[in-house]
Amino acid sequence: MQRDQQGGHAAAEREAIRRSGLLHLSTPREWGGQGLPWSTVYKVVRKVAQVDSALAHVFAFHHLQVASIRLFGNAAQQERLLKETIVGNLFWGNALNPLDKRTLATETPTGFVLHGDKSYCSGSVGSDRLLVSGWHAASESLVIAVLPTNRAGVTVEADWDSFGQRQTDSGTVRFDQVVVRQEEVLQHPGTVATPQRTLRTQVAQLVLTNLYLGIAQGAFEAARTQIQQHTRPSIFSTAATASQDPYVQHRIAELWLLLRPAVAIAEDAAQQVDRALLQGASLTAQHRGEVAIAVNEAKILAHRAVLEVSSQLFELTGARSTTQKLGLDRFWRNARVHTLHDPVDYKYRDLGRYLLDGQFPEPTSYS
Amino acid sequence: MQRDQQGGHAAAEREAIRRSGLLHLSTPREWGGQGLPWSTVYKVVRKVAQVDSALAHVFAFHHLQVASIRLFGNAAQQERLLKETIVGNLFWGNALNPLDKRTLATETPTGFVLHGDKSYCSGSVGSDRLLVSGWHAASESLVIAVLPTNRAGVTVEADWDSFGQRQTDSGTVRFDQVVVRQEEVLQHPGTVATPQRTLRTQVAQLVLTNLYLGIAQGAFEAARTQIQQHTRPSIFSTAATASQDPYVQHRIAELWLLLRPAVAIAEDAAQQVDRALLQGASLTAQHRGEVAIAVNEAKILAHRAVLEVSSQLFELTGARSTTQKLGLDRFWRNARVHTLHDPVDYKYRDLGRYLLDGQFPEPTSYS
Amino acid sequence: MQRDQQGGHAAAEREAIRRSGLLHLSTPREWGGQGLPWSTVYKVVRKVAQVDSALAHVFAFHHLQVASIRLFGNAAQQERLLKETIVGNLFWGNALNPLDKRTLATETPTGFVLHGDKSYCSGSVGSDRLLVSGWHAASESLVIAVLPTNRAGVTVEADWDSFGQRQTDSGTVRFDQVVVRQEEVLQHPGTVATPQRTLRTQVAQLVLTNLYLGIAQGAFEAARTQIQQHTRPSIFSTAATASQDPYVQHRIAELWLLLRPAVAIAEDAAQQVDRALLQGASLTAQHRGEVAIAVNEAKILAHRAVLEVSSQLFELTGARSTTQKLGLDRFWRNARVHTLHDPVDYKYRDLGRYLLDGQFPEPTSYS
Amino acid sequence: MQRDQQGGHAAAEREAIRRSGLLHLSTPREWGGQGLPWSTVYKVVRKVAQVDSALAHVFAFHHLQVASIRLFGNAAQQERLLKETIVGNLFWGNALNPLDKRTLATETPTGFVLHGDKSYCSGSVGSDRLLVSGWHAASESLVIAVLPTNRAGVTVEADWDSFGQRQTDSGTVRFDQVVVRQEEVLQHPGTVATPQRTLRTQVAQLVLTNLYLGIAQGAFEAARTQIQQHTRPSIFSTAATASQDPYVQHRIAELWLLLRPAVAIAEDAAQQVDRALLQGASLTAQHRGEVAIAVNEAKILAHRAVLEVSSQLFELTGARSTTQKLGLDRFWRNARVHTLHDPVDYKYRDLGRYLLDGQFPEPTSYS
Repeated sequence: MQRDQQGGHAAAEREAIRRSGLLHLSTPREWGGQGLPWSTVYKVVRKVAQVDSALAHVFAFHHLQVASIRLFGNAAQQERLLKETIVGNLFWGNALNPLDKRTLATETPTGFVLHGDKSYCSGSVGSDRLLVSGWHAASESLVIAVLPTNRAGVTVEADWDSFGQRQTDSGTVRFDQVVVRQEEVLQHPGTVATPQRTLRTQVAQLVLTNLYLGIAQGAFEAARTQIQQHTRPSIFSTAATASQDPYVQHRIAELWLLLRPAVAIAEDAAQQVDRALLQGASLTAQHRGEVAIAVNEAKILAHRAVLEVSSQLFELTGARSTTQKLGLDRFWRNARVHTLHDPVDYKYRDLGRYLLDGQFPEPTSYS
Repeated sequence: MQRDQQGGHAAAEREAIRRSGLLHLSTPREWGGQGLPWSTVYKVVRKVAQVDSALAHVFAFHHLQVASIRLFGNAAQQERLLKETIVGNLFWGNALNPLDKRTLATETPTGFVLHGDKSYCSGSVGSDRLLVSGWHAASESLVIAVLPTNRAGVTVEADWDSFGQRQTDSGTVRFDQVVVRQEEVLQHPGTVATPQRTLRTQVAQLVLTNLYLGIAQGAFEAARTQIQQHTRPSIFSTAATASQDPYVQHRIAELWLLLRPAVAIAEDAAQQVDRALLQGASLTAQHRGEVAIAVNEAKILAHRAVLEVSSQLFELTGARSTTQKLGLDRFWRNARVHTLHDPVDYKYRDLGRYLLDGQFPEPTSYS
Repeated sequence: MQRDQQGGHAAAEREAIRRSGLLHLSTPREWGGQGLPWSTVYKVVRKVAQVDSALAHVFAFHHLQVASIRLFGNAAQQERLLKETIVGNLFWGNALNPLDKRTLATETPTGFVLHGDKSYCSGSVGSDRLLVSGWHAASESLVIAVLPTNRAGVTVEADWDSFGQRQTDSGTVRFDQVVVRQEEVLQHPGTVATPQRTLRTQVAQLVLTNLYLGIAQGAFEAARTQIQQHTRPSIFSTAATASQDPYVQHRIAELWLLLRPAVAIAEDAAQQVDRALLQGASLTAQHRGEVAIAVNEAKILAHRAVLEVSSQLFELTGARSTTQKLGLDRFWRNARVHTLHDPVDYKYRDLGRYLLDGQFPEPTSYS
Repeated sequence: MQRDQQGGHAAAEREAIRRSGLLHLSTPREWGGQGLPWSTVYKVVRKVAQVDSALAHVFAFHHLQVASIRLFGNAAQQERLLKETIVGNLFWGNALNPLDKRTLATETPTGFVLHGDKSYCSGSVGSDRLLVSGWHAASESLVIAVLPTNRAGVTVEADWDSFGQRQTDSGTVRFDQVVVRQEEVLQHPGTVATPQRTLRTQVAQLVLTNLYLGIAQGAFEAARTQIQQHTRPSIFSTAATASQDPYVQHRIAELWLLLRPAVAIAEDAAQQVDRALLQGASLTAQHRGEVAIAVNEAKILAHRAVLEVSSQLFELTGARSTTQKLGLDRFWRNARVHTLHDPVDYKYRDLGRYLLDGQFPEPTSYS
């Protein structure tokens, strides 16, 4: 809560995550990791987000990069990069934002040179490694590569300035003639977007979903504690305690019924992501599409749940719960900022289109 | 649809159910039944309700009486009654309505005499056997017994007159000095309401839940078919088909997101009911309470889903879909009548009370 | 209520309306009418619709045709037709449906000949006069004219078959080489759609709005009476009467808060329609657009209010209120059928477009 | 926006209000004021709140104290205090909070002595005069009086610490044996709560209502400007601009339809408050009750509107609008803190009770 108010970079907390071994969760056992499925990673994401959704974001995005290496990299790259990650206990950050095409990738005899800025790079501040993308103008496609964050020419700006998710380290990364070596390139220009490769989007969308759910669960628990321990019944209420007020009971049940189904559907989607990841390169477009629909459903439900829970909790906890000492507004602020990643109305559109025409969401960075 | 308009008694359809063997679903194999768990019965209930929710009601209530025999009866009664049910391919009806205390049970040397009316007896019309309750004034408690519907003094009135669920055969049963023999008594006056016995309410509440869901699914499918095959896009729409209209896509997704989570939560609750039934007499109050909360959640979600889907579907299908030839209003009418069994606001109350004070719903005929 | 169940033609009720003098309400005093503004007509429409929304529809559509004569007719036509209407106490019906282009209008030396069918003709059955439209293929525009319903070649089919608004006499009118005389033509092919002429749509849309509101008010009153006089509190309630139950109080307040603002906004829109009608031919497109937005707002609010009130009232009145003797489902059925006249989502679209781009709704038969 | 982030006391802005003459708005002309009705004050409150809802609060609470003098004071007090207010261009603050009974009023030969703290005193910081209440233990009732803020023994703490409405100067006022003279007492212990006196609550509740509406209008305008000038259409949209996206249009219309009716109903309630104030001492309980219902309706609608608009605006404006440079979260934070003044669910309760039993809200400090 305190750190929410400060914003900035959560160096100590990131170190705590690193020391805990949680960065190894999703890396296969053969390379020294714990080999846990993404459904477990999502559970941990929710758990961490209940307490600190910015840290949960940074944590989850580390694993998203690990997943990306497995989805995009060849066998040698996977082995080298993931072993290195475990051995060095490295923290990965994201510099992939495909909508920002200012970072250009130009071919050289030994690989590529990256130049230009890339915004919204979650977890980049304080990272050891970055997954980066650059726009290759000739082929009108992206080059995707990995880099040490301290590679010459890379500057990470701690310029994230939103009113929520304040410690997500989502800065701008500036590339000044940065050399990328051949073996660092995970995706060359013009690479076909296979179902396996585009599954990354679904892994990422379900990260967001579970971040929303963790925030919602944190808000719900905070409200429950506040009602149980501090809120007095309305002067109009005949109830002895706030917990026994008929309207408090009704409204908290309504909020719960936003949260509980959203978690159930997200867990179901996580199972589907697990199974799809196991398919590897043999994943079909049909299967990828079904996963996309499951994740889509989960994301909309989580989106709605977190916004309602984090705002309506105050109806239950009352005026005294708005003190800055408690900082309970952070749930809504974090949720509000985070749920704008891509517009929810097009999630409905994709779902409706599927329901009516059987058309799966077009594989993009958001669907 | 035609029968919806007629109302009355669905003799032929009941015979079809009987011939299909579906009446044997939940009876244990040792007594000749199929021994399927309630989670399967609920699936069949939904399936039938998609097409005919009144028939699904009658079908489900047969199984509810079978479950009641197992929950209330002693070993001998269970064996005798259930074997008889299988051998005779008997159809059970309900005359238990505990709120209607007009039917009095008076002790006799050989058992009881029942006298007085009992309303809202689902599936009583055309049944072979009845589960009945009578009010025992001395002990201020219920006697529960089984009877052949053709026992002397029993008259079943086909007087159900609601605007929905028109063929549920939910008539008034009149008892005129009806003799009940000792071995027909499943529950004597003053019997303690054990967790096992009161689990019947949860089995019944989840029957209602799945009836709602079946109606909602039927309505959803009818809407989808209508949109795909008949609805023309609005004159204001730039879409080539109704299915491609952005607002049709958005709204059908919204409806789906009411239905899909409700089904998921109901299936989860069904698993819990299965497990609780397996506990038999050792079921604890705590375990029974957890089941009650799970069923409660499922019922509220199903309640909301079916009312919205069955009413809003017309926004999608348009004016032409209101013709009586299609009869698409039956979904809302059936849902609306059926969802008034007990007030949804007290389901929220029970859930909220549990969330805040950890108090389980008080075991009653509705909770 | 009884007539709702019969459907068909409400001959006696129409005669009662005729005898009451209510058909003269909106005709100017100079021609023998009562010269009341449309804001008053709308109030009467609501009043009648509370009791019988089908009759209210027929009544309102009579006045819509009277308004049409004033908006489309030249001075001589207005005088002749409106005087005749008063003297003969004539009932007007609608055969204008501009979307159904099967009725063709062909020029003749003395006027036009109409041939082909026209569907959804509200109030046509049992009418004395019709406002008709025919499609003029050469100019790709509508001819609008008036006819006695008994003109040779005109057949009115009582074939309306929806599950609601059952006595709206909204049949199909068949034209078999029907002669239309020059002086009966209110709008010739290719007539420019002036703001004044297209104001008819707004008068009509506000008729629908007030029909919705009347139904909603009727449903609300029926619910209130039922709760006050018949509904028993839930067995879970500690309240002495249903009226004192905290959830009944909360929910009826929620329904009221759908209804009350919708009426307020509709009354404001009615004032705007009154003022715009007074402008006559000098009405500007800007002014017409502002009226269209006001009516649009009112119609959406009324649409939502009536659907919620007519469906949710049952949560308040309970299971016993679903008996066919009360027929309380008629409110939802009437509302549901009637609110599909044109899709509500494009009302939102028009309103949103105006709010963001300042663009008024395109003048059409629905906007 | 900047001041929202600072919090604290808005001394310069208060001086600007003072210089503008706006403090004279509601004082009768006979005493040198502008004599404008409260309906006008409410309009100004909304206007100011669109830009700065904390300042609007302070401004409105000045006028609430002026109204209190007129409702509670005798003729001599009214003349003296209001003339003084005009001549000195005085700013009034509130120290009335009747729920906080820590401030005790003890009778003395020359009046009363006040001792103890009073929390939530809006506008107290930086005020010239205070309306204060003290609990008179003997009679179990409140003493209400006026005091110069600089009276010996009065300390105003700038300790307001909520995450919204940060500059409302709603501190704690500490009374240390503060002398109140007889002529400063507006309400003596045991004074009967006449309809006129209890009308103050309705004036105050409608102040809150209009503060909510002003915030909502400010948020709506900020959203509109952002969409029109900065928001880019979704990458999934086929629209050329965000304003033309079908979902943006739909959703902004939905938000508008929360806001527009709330304003209409609030304006209607303001007219009713004007009329009731004119009744003076002859105001009946019935009339006071009708005003209370009108204000109640307005307050619920405003409550819902402001919470939805201030949170959902971000769906329309997108991720870039969450930058702290814009500070658009202030609308939700201000709304969220302010709407907890008294619980909205009991507003519904009061309204429902009236609708069903005709019972007016019990006159209290909140109803």
